[in-house]
Amino acid sequence: MTSRVPLRSLSPDELASFLAHQQQAYADLQARGLKLDLTRGKPAPDQLDLSAALLDLPTTTLDRSGADVRNYGGLEGLPELREIFAELLGVEAAQVLCGGNSSLTMMHQVLTFLLLWGGPGSERAWKDEPVIKFVCPVPGYDRHFSMLADLGIEMLTVPMNADGPDVDAVAALVADDPAVKGMWVVPTYANPTGSVVSPEVARALMAMPTAAPDFRIFWDNAYALHHLTDDEVASADALGLAAAAGNPDRPVLFASTSKITWAGAGVAVMASSEATKAWFLKHLSMASIGPDKVNHLRHVELFGDAEGVRAHMRRHRELIAPKFAAVDAALTAGLEGLEIAEWTRPTGGYFVNLDVLDDTASRVVALAKEAGIALTPAGASFPHGQDPRDRNIRLAPTFPPLDQVEAAMAGVATCVALAAAEHLTAG
Amino acid sequence: MTSRVPLRSLSPDELASFLAHQQQAYADLQARGLKLDLTRGKPAPDQLDLSAALLDLPTTTLDRSGADVRNYGGLEGLPELREIFAELLGVEAAQVLCGGNSSLTMMHQVLTFLLLWGGPGSERAWKDEPVIKFVCPVPGYDRHFSMLADLGIEMLTVPMNADGPDVDAVAALVADDPAVKGMWVVPTYANPTGSVVSPEVARALMAMPTAAPDFRIFWDNAYALHHLTDDEVASADALGLAAAAGNPDRPVLFASTSKITWAGAGVAVMASSEATKAWFLKHLSMASIGPDKVNHLRHVELFGDAEGVRAHMRRHRELIAPKFAAVDAALTAGLEGLEIAEWTRPTGGYFVNLDVLDDTASRVVALAKEAGIALTPAGASFPHGQDPRDRNIRLAPTFPPLDQVEAAMAGVATCVALAAAEHLTAG
Repeated sequence: MTSRVPLRSLSPDELASFLAHQQQAYADLQARGLKLDLTRGKPAPDQLDLSAALLDLPTTTLDRSGADVRNYGGLEGLPELREIFAELLGVEAAQVLCGGNSSLTMMHQVLTFLLLWGGPGSERAWKDEPVIKFVCPVPGYDRHFSMLADLGIEMLTVPMNADGPDVDAVAALVADDPAVKGMWVVPTYANPTGSVVSPEVARALMAMPTAAPDFRIFWDNAYALHHLTDDEVASADALGLAAAAGNPDRPVLFASTSKITWAGAGVAVMASSEATKAWFLKHLSMASIGPDKVNHLRHVELFGDAEGVRAHMRRHRELIAPKFAAVDAALTAGLEGLEIAEWTRPTGGYFVNLDVLDDTASRVVALAKEAGIALTPAGASFPHGQDPRDRNIRLAPTFPPLDQVEAAMAGVATCVALAAAEHLTAG
Repeated sequence: MTSRVPLRSLSPDELASFLAHQQQAYADLQARGLKLDLTRGKPAPDQLDLSAALLDLPTTTLDRSGADVRNYGGLEGLPELREIFAELLGVEAAQVLCGGNSSLTMMHQVLTFLLLWGGPGSERAWKDEPVIKFVCPVPGYDRHFSMLADLGIEMLTVPMNADGPDVDAVAALVADDPAVKGMWVVPTYANPTGSVVSPEVARALMAMPTAAPDFRIFWDNAYALHHLTDDEVASADALGLAAAAGNPDRPVLFASTSKITWAGAGVAVMASSEATKAWFLKHLSMASIGPDKVNHLRHVELFGDAEGVRAHMRRHRELIAPKFAAVDAALTAGLEGLEIAEWTRPTGGYFVNLDVLDDTASRVVALAKEAGIALTPAGASFPHGQDPRDRNIRLAPTFPPLDQVEAAMAGVATCVALAAAEHLTAG
């Protein structure tokens, strides 16, 4: 492998030969009649089996206060579950709410509540502003962007660096324009780059001056506990840093057990300043008879405490770390040295970020599809699905069995090489 | 009891004697040091125990199509559960969505989606209308009204009759004012009156001309299956009548198992035209990774089929019908013949509607509170908690044990009589 040279350094004849070689490899790939899917970050069945005990829980229907979890009420969620998440997220239990099965739902509620009523510090309901804009680090999570698009919120992109969003770019956008009301951040093992927001970047984001008095950072810590190495990085203390900077209401934290227990039947968590929590509960009380506390108790009994969650996550790591290693091995075997692709070796989370030659990502995805390998659409990690360089591909290796990840990724490497060769010879 | 004469027919001396008698009865009541609660329509623990098998369900994690219910997806809900509810609600399975643990949440979503985007037939998002008004039959469900108040929607009241909302009053409100965009209806065993909307009233509501092209009836069929007698009345076919009248998108139906299985851990249901369903799912997909399908399957396994639900509801009836009989017995024993109160003898649902002498309901509730009997605040069944006649009290007898219902209601009868005597002697 080390004998490879950059594709751009080849002579025209060498490049033609490389192209022919990749065309043959691709024909061989197609002939295999694969049917593989790397599109979504879903836990595999063996990961879901780690929580099989949920089927027999809870063993009681009373919480520790003696309240019947089967009945109405308890809008904030079961206190014992809130305490577990407070420890895991490094916040106070009083700042935590536990909800239904989806943190996405809580994010959407916070956003629509801000639109309908405004929040702490707002001069008016956001719906009554002429325009609302959000800062969106890219590449990022497609559902964050589609939610904003559906609500007619404009998206301003900034680069996502290895230590988090480009702070200077963010600060410039928020400093003078009061229409810039919010920002998405996935602070730990970001989707799809795997970036971890450093304490310095977090401090800057929480302290930076904003023209909007009610600027909000949606701090989606979906992968806070989803380590792939022994380096179990701690998330930056968003609420503490914001309070220290005099902006206690700026961040709203979200997390869930969707990739801890069961993707569709877990529990979601939100943490915020107490003012934000009171504001949220006031409006939530119009829309809810309380969360599913039976499922809260089910989760409390499964884990016991915060350490139980951490131990559980190490079992996930055992199952999925080999799949991430397989992605890296296949891309290294097929592409190293050619200088036509860069990819991440994430230390946590659910994705590998693959950047191919500019203007070839769509072609790679199309080639893969024709070979029976489903990839996330090129551009999915950008607002409106538009990657200006057409180079970004999000790989999601957790769901398929290991042998399928290996087969699919070998195929992807072939597609990347073929698309690059096509592109360079077409020039 | 039949020897009683109307309180208003007594001479001043007789009335003074009656008052003194009630004051003594009330003093005796206070001396008992009761601590009873008839405030909310909650199932009692023995009702929740009817679904104890849920603790051991589901027995599989695959739905009938072979999909893993633990994972993401399935935004419409489990097809097998949708079919059960379709039969129970008299609609097509294709019209049904199953959601989370609260139909109130689905109502709030539909309402906020209409505000944010408008719906089928809307000329614009409702938030961009100068004012939005809803027709509210009274007395009605307090949470319906508080949701509207929180959203700044004006409420226009109409009388709730024994066969449903006063159709002429409704028709007059909606005919000419395009700001009148919607209406609440609890069609079966309404909260709190127990009224059942007749097919004729339903037909009129679905067919009446409305100035708003996107008029919506929120058809909250929370008690569709909650019979208290052998007369298991069928709800009017709102969707069919609306479609026949050329207004297919007008009604949106809601129901849940909150008072069938577990109040806080059940499943919610919505049924609508397919256009409304597609509109709702489009926006819901931005806010949800799918409902808790494990809980859907848990419910499917508990019931088996629609008849399983009906059989389950008969077991509820066995537990709560005696409590409703106790309410009637206590009110009859204490008040019959005095012509100072009227109350319902509901054939289903969760409430008894008690109308006392005008201008005395608040006093009755205050007297009861001082005697250790918590009642729903007077006026709770009216928009903004304002009963213009101060006569309406909602009684919720399901949660306390039977002996407590008996004790509480005997006390309530005393409070009603005392308040009436005070009022008539103060004249």
